[in-house]
Amino acid sequence: MAVVSGKSSLFYSVPAKNASVPSLSIALILLLVAGLEAESVDDGRNQLFAGILRDEAVERINQLAKISDADGYLERTFLSSASVKAAQLIIEWMRDAGLRTWVDQMGNVHGRSEALNTTAETLLIGSHADTVVDAGKFDGSLGIICAISALKVLKTNGKLHKLSRPVEVIAFSDEEGVRFQSTFLGSAAIAGQLPASALRTSDKNGATIQDVLKENSFEGSDASLLQVKYDPESVWGYIEVHIEQGPVLESLGSPLGIVKGIAGQTRLKVKVSGSQGHAGTVPMLMRQDSMVAAAELIVNLESLCKYPDRALTYKEQCGSYKKESFSGLVCTVGEISSWPGASNVIPGQVNFTVDIRAMDDDDRGAIVTEFSRQVYQICDNRMVNCTIEHKHTAEAVHCDSELSQQLKQAAHSTVKKMSRKIQDEVPVLMSGAGHDAMAMSHLTKVGMLFVRCRGGVSHSPDEYVSDNDVWAAGLVLLHFLDQHVSGDCMSS
Amino acid sequence: MAVVSGKSSLFYSVPAKNASVPSLSIALILLLVAGLEAESVDDGRNQLFAGILRDEAVERINQLAKISDADGYLERTFLSSASVKAAQLIIEWMRDAGLRTWVDQMGNVHGRSEALNTTAETLLIGSHADTVVDAGKFDGSLGIICAISALKVLKTNGKLHKLSRPVEVIAFSDEEGVRFQSTFLGSAAIAGQLPASALRTSDKNGATIQDVLKENSFEGSDASLLQVKYDPESVWGYIEVHIEQGPVLESLGSPLGIVKGIAGQTRLKVKVSGSQGHAGTVPMLMRQDSMVAAAELIVNLESLCKYPDRALTYKEQCGSYKKESFSGLVCTVGEISSWPGASNVIPGQVNFTVDIRAMDDDDRGAIVTEFSRQVYQICDNRMVNCTIEHKHTAEAVHCDSELSQQLKQAAHSTVKKMSRKIQDEVPVLMSGAGHDAMAMSHLTKVGMLFVRCRGGVSHSPDEYVSDNDVWAAGLVLLHFLDQHVSGDCMSS
Repeated sequence: MAVVSGKSSLFYSVPAKNASVPSLSIALILLLVAGLEAESVDDGRNQLFAGILRDEAVERINQLAKISDADGYLERTFLSSASVKAAQLIIEWMRDAGLRTWVDQMGNVHGRSEALNTTAETLLIGSHADTVVDAGKFDGSLGIICAISALKVLKTNGKLHKLSRPVEVIAFSDEEGVRFQSTFLGSAAIAGQLPASALRTSDKNGATIQDVLKENSFEGSDASLLQVKYDPESVWGYIEVHIEQGPVLESLGSPLGIVKGIAGQTRLKVKVSGSQGHAGTVPMLMRQDSMVAAAELIVNLESLCKYPDRALTYKEQCGSYKKESFSGLVCTVGEISSWPGASNVIPGQVNFTVDIRAMDDDDRGAIVTEFSRQVYQICDNRMVNCTIEHKHTAEAVHCDSELSQQLKQAAHSTVKKMSRKIQDEVPVLMSGAGHDAMAMSHLTKVGMLFVRCRGGVSHSPDEYVSDNDVWAAGLVLLHFLDQHVSGDCMSS
Repeated sequence: MAVVSGKSSLFYSVPAKNASVPSLSIALILLLVAGLEAESVDDGRNQLFAGILRDEAVERINQLAKISDADGYLERTFLSSASVKAAQLIIEWMRDAGLRTWVDQMGNVHGRSEALNTTAETLLIGSHADTVVDAGKFDGSLGIICAISALKVLKTNGKLHKLSRPVEVIAFSDEEGVRFQSTFLGSAAIAGQLPASALRTSDKNGATIQDVLKENSFEGSDASLLQVKYDPESVWGYIEVHIEQGPVLESLGSPLGIVKGIAGQTRLKVKVSGSQGHAGTVPMLMRQDSMVAAAELIVNLESLCKYPDRALTYKEQCGSYKKESFSGLVCTVGEISSWPGASNVIPGQVNFTVDIRAMDDDDRGAIVTEFSRQVYQICDNRMVNCTIEHKHTAEAVHCDSELSQQLKQAAHSTVKKMSRKIQDEVPVLMSGAGHDAMAMSHLTKVGMLFVRCRGGVSHSPDEYVSDNDVWAAGLVLLHFLDQHVSGDCMSS
């Protein structure tokens, strides 16, 4: 039975010398499974795995969630003081797992274990350490901490230095893009996808990425940005564990899922300029009110994305679009501001963000085009001036089929062992959320594992992953490493 | 001819000893008028009035506009550091005009000249020293500076201490309500209309009015608030000069207008609570999006106020409303915020302000009721939770007919003298904007003079009043004081 062979065993706490007593191992597994189901695991005998992959991992997730730039809610943005503090903690944990650590010139934290074969390509495992405003504690952190924990198990079992290829955990410095309104600063730099011009982007206080890097003792130069880039030839692949952030796995009753691909995304900033004036004295019919114009645009965007086939009927007639199309299309206005922003002033300026995602890049393109047409038409009708700034575009990403199959096998084995019931196929799903894997796909093949969350809620303090699901995610990584990155010597 | 008699002369620079040479006075007037029209006034002979009422007044308006809490635009809110600095300057100018000055316990600046008759009731002349965000320089300041200038002319001519009743200029500390979202803190306190509970209102940083008062060495107690209140028996009336902030006077070609009344106002805060979530993972049809709900409410509010008779048809059928109603109805959403306010998060909370004004209080009530009904209906449909907070209500105010008539006569005389043409009737108009006169109407009879502004623009850096219109406003006040507050001794 593969699960109890030395090479593929998930349970390194079973001493290698006892490999001759599979019945004991099976008994242990059954005990473990019973515990997972009943939430009353016997930590006495399975202390190591539960201790590292569940209890310590959960404890670390909670610890990281306490490091925030804000009082009363979680917020860590690119190189903020909380982010710097979080990076120090992650470095400590990486070292504890036996990894050699460093921070690159974009603030990404790396923890690496070399392989016996010094020419082998590296397996990268990563996720992001930054958060949105008022964030949940699993988004990003889960992937970093599960990876460190899985490697810590290898270290504890003396297998870390017997890997067939180097393994490197990366905690990316920016994925959410809250501070600079531009996603993937960390992973895009590593993938060589971040142009030097991005360093000149400013945050709300006028500080550029360059300024912020320099404040934190990084070089912040075009040359130092180039140093961050990895040579594709040196990398074998990239895998990422991430909270699903949607309701699919929960509805299927599955703790884990394999990601087939990631939706493409367009981020726009719409600026509406009207005529600023006194709220009491300008008659309704004489107004060029940027607020009501913006409100009309937002209502129209919702309608367009709820019923895209209605708005795009004219294109349908030309044969460009089918009604069945627009899979996973979602549109969001998350941020809005008015100027001058007083209750008794007709705003002269209203700006808002638009986030459009779809599984199909052509669908997304059609929606962006149609929305832009509506913006200019509505603004013309209202005699206000509107501009649309393209802040970010990411093509949809298709995960590597082989890597996905390997992750699926590892997940299937894990779920099978954690459940008494006959296990269904591990679900395969698309991701509506963008992830660092999108940027990393420009560097190497990528694979992703999703972990179930309660109610599909994310980007919210209500975000929740059960302790056992955290554990399951760690076990999948451990299984994956064992199956695909272990050296020949590990089978001994 | 009344204008050249000692008692009613606008031109104190004509020495009293020369009262026997009216022809010279007439010549001077004609010179002055010619100058006003041609923008090339002979300052040699009319130096005093033009110097004080126009040049110095304009210079002071510009000087005050430089005192701002913000870099690059004008902003002075209740007891901000710029407001404190502005108050010091106003005190200096009041003293220069021969007035006794003090600051009351709500930060209002007073400058007073006593009368020979110590039991006579006081004429109050005021306007506000605070501003909106990104304000124009005339809103508020014009009324304060014109009043000080008119009294300075009286002082210069030795007539200040011969008044038949005390005259007091008040620069109110808060009319716009930007900092505490509550208007008329200054004038309402003087009128005894500010409840002690208002002292516990907080600004965006959590500082209460009480805190802010104490920081500025005021008592900030319920008792000290009571001290600010004036005894109605001690006050004769209140007049205010103010920029029109609308397009009527400009369209009529008149520099000045008399205010018949001030529109009533309701200020609401609408809070929309939806379900916060990830912008990429929650399907459009499963969202409880507070942003699109807020946008729909804003679009509906505009429609309701543009075409109130359409929405209120069902009431019409009941005979409550006539189509001809809703005079001066305007509705504005000036401020909006989303939480957490990131482009990739469906907002869990969106708050916005609503400002509804109408000349008729019943109209306004009907609109507020109908809007509230629509809010709850739309929020129910969208499964979001909405609350409406009533922040401020002010009934429409009708100016005192006698005081208005006296101001009208003074304005007519001024305009007549400043124009070679046969002067039409001075326009009488309603004010859509709220003013301190609204609060003061609870204390005493009120009258208001409007001054023409370019394009009807206000609450904007583009706000503009010509130098000669500033002068005209000062001359009206001077004329009014001369006609109605001069002692018998002044006719000598």
